[in-house]
Amino acid sequence: MQARQITLASRPVGMPTAETFGSRVVELAPPGDGEVLVRWLFLSVDPYMRGRMNAARSYVPPFEVGEPLVGSAVGEVVESRSAAFAAGDLVMSMASWSDYEVKPVHSLRRVEPAEGVSASAYLGVLGMPGFTAYIGLTRFGEPKAGEVLFVSGAAGAVGSTVGQIAKLMGLKVIGSAGGPAKAARLGELGFDVGIDYRSGDIVYLLAEAAPDGIDVYVGNVGGSHLIAALEASRDYARFVMCGSISGYNSKAREPGPWNLFRVVQRRLTLRGFIVSDHGSAIGEFTEKMSGWIRAGEVKYDETIVKGLENAPEAFLGLFSGANLGKMVVEL
Amino acid sequence: MQARQITLASRPVGMPTAETFGSRVVELAPPGDGEVLVRWLFLSVDPYMRGRMNAARSYVPPFEVGEPLVGSAVGEVVESRSAAFAAGDLVMSMASWSDYEVKPVHSLRRVEPAEGVSASAYLGVLGMPGFTAYIGLTRFGEPKAGEVLFVSGAAGAVGSTVGQIAKLMGLKVIGSAGGPAKAARLGELGFDVGIDYRSGDIVYLLAEAAPDGIDVYVGNVGGSHLIAALEASRDYARFVMCGSISGYNSKAREPGPWNLFRVVQRRLTLRGFIVSDHGSAIGEFTEKMSGWIRAGEVKYDETIVKGLENAPEAFLGLFSGANLGKMVVEL
Repeated sequence: MQARQITLASRPVGMPTAETFGSRVVELAPPGDGEVLVRWLFLSVDPYMRGRMNAARSYVPPFEVGEPLVGSAVGEVVESRSAAFAAGDLVMSMASWSDYEVKPVHSLRRVEPAEGVSASAYLGVLGMPGFTAYIGLTRFGEPKAGEVLFVSGAAGAVGSTVGQIAKLMGLKVIGSAGGPAKAARLGELGFDVGIDYRSGDIVYLLAEAAPDGIDVYVGNVGGSHLIAALEASRDYARFVMCGSISGYNSKAREPGPWNLFRVVQRRLTLRGFIVSDHGSAIGEFTEKMSGWIRAGEVKYDETIVKGLENAPEAFLGLFSGANLGKMVVEL
Repeated sequence: MQARQITLASRPVGMPTAETFGSRVVELAPPGDGEVLVRWLFLSVDPYMRGRMNAARSYVPPFEVGEPLVGSAVGEVVESRSAAFAAGDLVMSMASWSDYEVKPVHSLRRVEPAEGVSASAYLGVLGMPGFTAYIGLTRFGEPKAGEVLFVSGAAGAVGSTVGQIAKLMGLKVIGSAGGPAKAARLGELGFDVGIDYRSGDIVYLLAEAAPDGIDVYVGNVGGSHLIAALEASRDYARFVMCGSISGYNSKAREPGPWNLFRVVQRRLTLRGFIVSDHGSAIGEFTEKMSGWIRAGEVKYDETIVKGLENAPEAFLGLFSGANLGKMVVEL
């Protein structure tokens, strides 16, 4: 039995290129006791993976050069050597970027999509991005009905979920996304204002959208959106930092916001978090989010790229904003 | 009855100069009912006053050009038209930079220094700077015994108090100050490590002083000390921001720290606060701090500049590090 894999050919400096990725075919040993052979159906590509391409240890260890990239995936059990799973079962776990893989059953989570929910949703709105949105907003944003929330990357997997949950909690929600189509999509998702940040200077665009300021910001730790959020902040505003996509591919040290002194002047709280610290809340999240999706209260977009060989392209597309909602590779 | 006043002659751009300040003599009307005539004994000069020299409204309104500068002061009642105070009583309040002033009694707080405590201490360790240290550390720093705290401006009025309270709470305390004499003074105040930040790059000096990292940072919102603290931060560290002295005199927008992404990577919390929001804790503070001073557990330094006419020089000295402990003008 053979498997195709996409590997890290070399560590990128700045934006990854075609040279960053390689591929190979490996021979798979048949599953042993307590193992299953999985055919991957959907692979997740996420911005945080860029950090794992560097040699430096961050909150997750680096990928190894010459070895497959690794991310969340949903697959189907093809052959089982365990009573826990049978052929045909849907499962998810961390996976090598590959078409087939042998996995120990303790690393797998069963996936049983409800009527009308695709299995790929477990990589997005019901997976890590949706959970990130939920934890960030509910554990760190201290949202209160009537307040104003601003979320960047609002057409993406995390941002679109943050905005919709905030609407359910009674906030006024302003989102920012790149381009008129994405900005318009925010309106369809129930956002009060969808800003196309490419249409001008986000500092002024946000000031116009939130003339009385913002109480909660959910977004990246750097770039012009953080500057804009600091300028627009009301006293005691909360800033929830869950990524820094604009800096992931920087070769040089990018300066931080010139207006960080607003933190003192306006008594702000900035908090960073890593969603994997909050695993104990996954049950609560799954129950609530499943309910919201069933009730049509949270919608989710997916951008599907077909073919394992196109996984690098899908990954790179994250940084040019090629995705509406969750970017997924379908095998 | 005449009073001498130091006025804001013009709004400074960048560092204030001799042209920033003026002086005049005004005729004082005698105190009316409910008023007292006060002779000021000690005027406080504090870094935050730089912000009030700008036209823009911050968390306190700007000084008026042509009018006296205003700050905390301790004085003696000379003539009273109220039963609340008698001639000879010591009082404190916000005061014009002047030798004499007529004040309504409701604006005054009585000062009764304990044995061995100078009246000027009510402008420093027992006043706003000491209260800032206490609130910042106890309300925002979440200090725990055994943790490591780093404080910048550690030989100053706020920083020296932060470090000593943290020692009382069982933390390892690292302070940074400018020059070998100040760094040595930190040792005498009980700090575990006193760094002279002029002796090298603070990023490396702090890494050496705190090889296992820091849990709490109390200091300014900008500059190289914040970069160093971000680099040295342990997971879940708390950053308490109570000023930005390095940027107060900037003409240009200074870039923020290049390593702000540590906030996400290490799950940091950064919080700004304004001490005047916490007035309800002043009783608790005064009782504890008075006790610590009486017991010799908190020491305080003062740099006394004599003469109202030298108040501008004393103020400017704050930005060149001319003070050890609290900078006070004695009239």
